[in-house]
Amino acid sequence: MKNIVLLIMDGLGDNPNPEFFGKTALQAAYRPNLNALCRKSICGLMDPVGPGIRSGSDTSHLSILGYSPERYYNGRGPFEALGLGMELYPGDVAFRANYAYVSDGYVLDRRAGRISDTCELSRAVSMEIEDVKITVKSGTEHRAAIVMHGPGLSSMVSDSDPHRENERPMEIRPLDKKAEKTARILNEFIKKSREILNKHPVNIKRMNQGLMPANEILIRGAGMVPDLEDFYDRYHLKAACISGTPLIKGICRLAGMDIINMDNLTGRVDENYSGIFEKAHELAKKYDFIIINIKGTDIAGHDRRPDIKRSVIENVDSAISKIINDLDDLLIIVTGDHSTPCNLGDHSGDPVPIMFSSNNIRSDNVMLFDETSVRNGSLRIRGLDVMKIALSLSNRSEKYGA
Amino acid sequence: MKNIVLLIMDGLGDNPNPEFFGKTALQAAYRPNLNALCRKSICGLMDPVGPGIRSGSDTSHLSILGYSPERYYNGRGPFEALGLGMELYPGDVAFRANYAYVSDGYVLDRRAGRISDTCELSRAVSMEIEDVKITVKSGTEHRAAIVMHGPGLSSMVSDSDPHRENERPMEIRPLDKKAEKTARILNEFIKKSREILNKHPVNIKRMNQGLMPANEILIRGAGMVPDLEDFYDRYHLKAACISGTPLIKGICRLAGMDIINMDNLTGRVDENYSGIFEKAHELAKKYDFIIINIKGTDIAGHDRRPDIKRSVIENVDSAISKIINDLDDLLIIVTGDHSTPCNLGDHSGDPVPIMFSSNNIRSDNVMLFDETSVRNGSLRIRGLDVMKIALSLSNRSEKYGA
Repeated sequence: MKNIVLLIMDGLGDNPNPEFFGKTALQAAYRPNLNALCRKSICGLMDPVGPGIRSGSDTSHLSILGYSPERYYNGRGPFEALGLGMELYPGDVAFRANYAYVSDGYVLDRRAGRISDTCELSRAVSMEIEDVKITVKSGTEHRAAIVMHGPGLSSMVSDSDPHRENERPMEIRPLDKKAEKTARILNEFIKKSREILNKHPVNIKRMNQGLMPANEILIRGAGMVPDLEDFYDRYHLKAACISGTPLIKGICRLAGMDIINMDNLTGRVDENYSGIFEKAHELAKKYDFIIINIKGTDIAGHDRRPDIKRSVIENVDSAISKIINDLDDLLIIVTGDHSTPCNLGDHSGDPVPIMFSSNNIRSDNVMLFDETSVRNGSLRIRGLDVMKIALSLSNRSEKYGA
Repeated sequence: MKNIVLLIMDGLGDNPNPEFFGKTALQAAYRPNLNALCRKSICGLMDPVGPGIRSGSDTSHLSILGYSPERYYNGRGPFEALGLGMELYPGDVAFRANYAYVSDGYVLDRRAGRISDTCELSRAVSMEIEDVKITVKSGTEHRAAIVMHGPGLSSMVSDSDPHRENERPMEIRPLDKKAEKTARILNEFIKKSREILNKHPVNIKRMNQGLMPANEILIRGAGMVPDLEDFYDRYHLKAACISGTPLIKGICRLAGMDIINMDNLTGRVDENYSGIFEKAHELAKKYDFIIINIKGTDIAGHDRRPDIKRSVIENVDSAISKIINDLDDLLIIVTGDHSTPCNLGDHSGDPVPIMFSSNNIRSDNVMLFDETSVRNGSLRIRGLDVMKIALSLSNRSEKYGA
């Protein structure tokens, strides 16, 4: 049995870049170590969720870890909250929220003048109602997430957000009988938060400056925190997550993995690359499965910066040297969670290269690890296939039949 | 966002032909434009419905347009009727029918001596019963289709066709309670049509000539016209169909597309090839999605004529030059709806080549567009994946997750 390191370079897949004379960032990168791994790998292309599906990091990580997004991805709220680093537990209900400006009962600006910092407001409106704890956490600008924690909650409630301006915030309605408590508490929360926000010093100061007060929280995107089957129970793998990205850490924590804290884990382009792989090398002695998420590739894609994407990949390539001599004991999987082509500045539905690298496996003899070269490999898979292949190649899967 | 042209060469896929020293018609064709598109494409093989499924044009077009045949293909009747150019609406029930010869209550010939023209008879037996309009339309030889239009109809009725000779035509039985009205009206229709047919001049003339009269309509293959979700509602694509083939036009009309009328659109081998692509070039300015069906390739396959199939492909190749310079604004998809190998003279379950061609996408660098060369591309997909990939590559798909 081998231990498994799953390296996900977020948004790895790309399109041809004119800066690189039609090469992708991965093709343009100096990547001797990734190529060396490729030569000892079974490789190919993977559709993280399905062909042409333009998946997010949330749905694609669920899929790659073997949790069907169709089953587990119900509503954006919980993943928005995880992305803000909030603690969520099965049975919690979470929402996306906007700070908005309401006057005479009408929403005049759904973004409260794109207010830049609402942290104090979010602290002020976090409260308990009945036996439910409501936590509000601010995101960027006017955005926030709300988590309800307590017994008997349901995500079957309507939005209060009218989704356009010059309309009234709507009363939250239960969409079935079991959601009555949740709707009642949310309406009470909205009423109380209005009182708090209208007289909050931050808003009074804004009004004195002629700025719109953020005096209403508009709620949408209700979702039940998914009860992911424990990763260990499912795969018999003691698992750890190394990531600087709250969303990824949140998903891995929901799956019951240990979340590794270490210095300078930023989730940014200036990542602690060598530290991450040193840590992985060390952890591989006591964990069966280590997932590493490198966010810089995705950030560079969103920022339309192929030069930065290339340099992130080169940093990873250099740092991965810490583990590439462990292939007798390790199965190293390298892939992306989706494509974030620099020419689009956003996720696309294109597949990503993937390789399963180890000693004593049937190698595909592909010489270069990139989007086009791995087409000559033997895999044309979906995210949901990854864990099955990983278990098989690490000599851990149970026989199906006899 | 790019607009999309989906070119379906009906029955495109083929097997090696001795006439071409083992090449397929597509491989044997001079096709510089299709090959040029291929070099700028993401390509591969597609199973229109699924691996090994020997699909018809109806099931495969449904699948390629994203309508699962499993869900929407219920009974041959509606598609037979669409193929005859009949107008059908959701809620209508349609049937396949045979003109037969019945004597003393027994079916003596299910094809009424392979009668060649039944158009007058079909007009004579089209009628209204209660609040239901029954339209009969003749196909080739003894074949016909029947459409019932009116409220409260059901396809859950048995056949009147005994499916063999020397048996009595059967009474139509309702297979559930909701089908009682439909069965009652059909039995009434059969009774009345017998009276009309037995004294119709066409049949009297046939009897005088010693030919079998077509004095009974045998009914089978009941199917409810599928309520296809509107193509625009589903994909936010304003869509047009260019095809000379009634079945394809019918399916596209059911999906709410505009059906383009133009001169010399024959649906035959002698098609108005250049006119079609000139029209597509023009329509691409106001439509988001244009589907073109070229029927000649399929006809040549059924006729076991690889030479004709090759020449149809060469005509398409020449005509497609009208749009291949639009790849900055267009995504051009070229494929077949199924294989109609000339050596079989009928559809096979083999996959078809497919390419998604545009500028600024991740090209697979495959040099030739044909059944074997595209295996080096990155796609190994099913018909139901096509629209997802098309939306993604035209930068139109919504993100699944964040």
